[in-house]
Amino acid sequence: MSARRDQSAPSEQERPQATVLVASNRGPASYSLSDDGSLSIKRGGGGLVSGLSAIGGADGTVWVCAALGEGDREAARRAPGGRLDHLAEESARTDQPVRMLDIDAGTFTRAYNGIANSTLWFVHHLLYDTPVKPVFDDRFRKEWDSYQAYNRAFAEALAAEAAPGATVLIQDYHLTLTPHQLRELRPDLRIGHFSHTPWAPPDYYRLLPDRVAAQVLEGVLGADRAAFLTRRWARTFADCCEAVLGAEVVDPGPDGGDLTIRHQGREVRIGVHGLGADAEFLRDRAHQPDVDSRLAGLRTSVGTGPDGRPRRTIVRVDRTELSKNIVRGLLAYRHLLRTREEWRGRVVHIAFAYPSRHDLPEYREYTAAVQRLAAEINDEFGTADWQPLLLHVDDDFPRSLAAYRLADVALVNPIRDGMNLVAKEVPVVSDEGCALVLSREAGAAAELAEDSVMVNPYDVIATADALDAALNMPAGERAERCKRLAAAATALPPQRWFLDQLEALR
Amino acid sequence: MSARRDQSAPSEQERPQATVLVASNRGPASYSLSDDGSLSIKRGGGGLVSGLSAIGGADGTVWVCAALGEGDREAARRAPGGRLDHLAEESARTDQPVRMLDIDAGTFTRAYNGIANSTLWFVHHLLYDTPVKPVFDDRFRKEWDSYQAYNRAFAEALAAEAAPGATVLIQDYHLTLTPHQLRELRPDLRIGHFSHTPWAPPDYYRLLPDRVAAQVLEGVLGADRAAFLTRRWARTFADCCEAVLGAEVVDPGPDGGDLTIRHQGREVRIGVHGLGADAEFLRDRAHQPDVDSRLAGLRTSVGTGPDGRPRRTIVRVDRTELSKNIVRGLLAYRHLLRTREEWRGRVVHIAFAYPSRHDLPEYREYTAAVQRLAAEINDEFGTADWQPLLLHVDDDFPRSLAAYRLADVALVNPIRDGMNLVAKEVPVVSDEGCALVLSREAGAAAELAEDSVMVNPYDVIATADALDAALNMPAGERAERCKRLAAAATALPPQRWFLDQLEALR
Repeated sequence: MSARRDQSAPSEQERPQATVLVASNRGPASYSLSDDGSLSIKRGGGGLVSGLSAIGGADGTVWVCAALGEGDREAARRAPGGRLDHLAEESARTDQPVRMLDIDAGTFTRAYNGIANSTLWFVHHLLYDTPVKPVFDDRFRKEWDSYQAYNRAFAEALAAEAAPGATVLIQDYHLTLTPHQLRELRPDLRIGHFSHTPWAPPDYYRLLPDRVAAQVLEGVLGADRAAFLTRRWARTFADCCEAVLGAEVVDPGPDGGDLTIRHQGREVRIGVHGLGADAEFLRDRAHQPDVDSRLAGLRTSVGTGPDGRPRRTIVRVDRTELSKNIVRGLLAYRHLLRTREEWRGRVVHIAFAYPSRHDLPEYREYTAAVQRLAAEINDEFGTADWQPLLLHVDDDFPRSLAAYRLADVALVNPIRDGMNLVAKEVPVVSDEGCALVLSREAGAAAELAEDSVMVNPYDVIATADALDAALNMPAGERAERCKRLAAAATALPPQRWFLDQLEALR
Repeated sequence: MSARRDQSAPSEQERPQATVLVASNRGPASYSLSDDGSLSIKRGGGGLVSGLSAIGGADGTVWVCAALGEGDREAARRAPGGRLDHLAEESARTDQPVRMLDIDAGTFTRAYNGIANSTLWFVHHLLYDTPVKPVFDDRFRKEWDSYQAYNRAFAEALAAEAAPGATVLIQDYHLTLTPHQLRELRPDLRIGHFSHTPWAPPDYYRLLPDRVAAQVLEGVLGADRAAFLTRRWARTFADCCEAVLGAEVVDPGPDGGDLTIRHQGREVRIGVHGLGADAEFLRDRAHQPDVDSRLAGLRTSVGTGPDGRPRRTIVRVDRTELSKNIVRGLLAYRHLLRTREEWRGRVVHIAFAYPSRHDLPEYREYTAAVQRLAAEINDEFGTADWQPLLLHVDDDFPRSLAAYRLADVALVNPIRDGMNLVAKEVPVVSDEGCALVLSREAGAAAELAEDSVMVNPYDVIATADALDAALNMPAGERAERCKRLAAAATALPPQRWFLDQLEALR
């Protein structure tokens, strides 16, 4: 094996140095290891993959990511210098240059579960049960050390791969320290950071241990430019810099544009790029045969009401994530059925709640609560020929697209959300026009408020009222609004989103 | 009975109308009903009682409060017009004119438990387990109706008692709607509102149902002047008015003074009065024989260390309130004993956690968690002659004062607190000087930060470090700091606090 690796490995001199680099926890591909020892590759999706496709698989680009499972780790070990596009097994090579970091499993778990998902995610989404959690103790200190090491591994890989003066785009809350670490190693680079989450307001952000709170902010400020999905999150980030670091925030002029943060003699620009849905991909994918067949299946499950017409549908598609507010969504649906008898037998709520972060106990409890409440609703209202709620917890992307096409009403009610792409995707693929019930705490509200039915996500009765209004929206109005929602949702396609950030950095 | 009542009841014409009125949920006295049908009175304490004593029991004052238990209700029923100073039973009369409102028990419970203590208190202290609580449903709506009715009962009583142009001081989160309601009934009055709690930042405050969020702010803005314990809470209140109502906030000039909020054609001033400890009362009370005898008892329980000297003491005194952060305090003490063996056998933590709000399930669970953890700590470290933790959960004011006198270190670590008077009281009565470990999230931090050991209350290790630093503080430094803390803590005694508000309103 080692002989093969050496054969195909380019030497340091040979390796073409990258001029555009992307860093994110999850990469564009994942690997599994077969019994015969061969690797198989599964290519991923998402805004970043689409975005990066704008610049193709040119030699000048590299995507640095973490090996997430044993297949990934094996791929990283077999790939010369960790570069998967150089893998000996041709069928397992990536389309574009990818470098996967084989980070020690314990370090990775503490950084990823302990800090990124159990701490920073909770802080930015205001998810803590504050009287008892978080507790910053010895265990946390060890997790924080791992997070620093994990971020440093990215900084070192980026420093090794980047050509002089290259541009680096570092992604999200997993990698808040990397910009600062990378600047120390390579002050010649142009560094950007992008947050896909909300940002906590200072009164909540400051529950982090003081040193950690400052390090995260200064880590992000290591970039030349830090960007967010909406002006609101850019502003709360700036508020935190002011409150925690004593940094100075300079507002943009009346024409808008970037904020500027002055801290320790440097100026960092703070920008906004509202990632849109990938219309071309979605419309094509949503009309593949696998989606069509699932659509037929869903229609059968939904059935027809007492008037012989197809029942109305309220659709939600989420990871079972604490911030997605699935429980209150179900309570709102129950309230609708309790208080507006005219909908009984005439509407079906299709709720897809896909597994997420089951290694965290809060998520297992939350998933159980969702399932319990769903069963209660079906028990309370179900009849021989009407199941009021279809809950599915197994992930199935074509079925999600089928539900998008079918939905009369889409329910997107997170208690706090960086953007929420479901809110943007449904209007794009809807067959007949869909009314969108949207939480004002989703970043998407910044672009979609006008044609949505907006709700306060904590208010179950207001959400039920919004569902009723959405169900009663005349077909013509619904189609018109849906068209405008789709236009707003695709205003900034992933490729443009990515290129805009590159241009702003150069 | 009714004949007796009529005999002593002044007619409406006779009743002297009040020129200064105070309204608060809890009044200055409470009643219990004996088996023989007679009422006995128990007079209360606290800043408001001390404050009001500044203007004595003059006929020109009235205190309006709610009847809290069956004894209170009976007293209110027996008192002509609800005025307890006119009670037929002389021994049960109040020192000053008090009118107790006999509000329907269901209405009172929904307003007090449902809205005041389970909603507004939780919002302002950031206490919710947001993924699942709060849920604003039918039950909440009913509670909110009750809160409005309960506030209206106060507004009507105040309107009936007040002389033309009188000054009214309305207290706290129980009575946020009363200022607006009273203004509608009696636009001639000068109305003040005082918040004894923190105020939530807009991102958290807005989880309240929209109408409720607006009504609470506009209720308080019904006052001519609304005041808070620190500039920080005044500012977050103003931020909420800006974010929720679109009100305009005008900062004071460079000399400080009130903020001004412009809303719907009115200007409301926003002031700050940092209520101080009542030095005279505390120093006198802390040297009564019942306190001396408890002090002797505590000294015996604390005992002497291996060096033959009295063990050091860390004292905390709190209601068992979710915001008081007792669990993390115990975790910090455990961390201290685990990591700094030199303190084993040489320190005792005296923790008084008095019962609070046991009709709310969150509080029962929290109390159980405190007791469980306390037992674990004693199990882990206790020896035949050293009990590391003395936890007492039965309320005993003289014992609290004894602990204040004895404390080498006072631990005051709330996750969020309007002021925290314990932090101000301990330095005042300390016998030998006490080091104060103080949360930066307590309002008291605004005045006491300089001579305290400040902590981030979520950071258990930082809190343990602070306890260690406080225990190691040289006696001379400790005494000096304590003296300055006592001076800062008594800078605004209750009577001055009260008179300042009256003057600012006139």
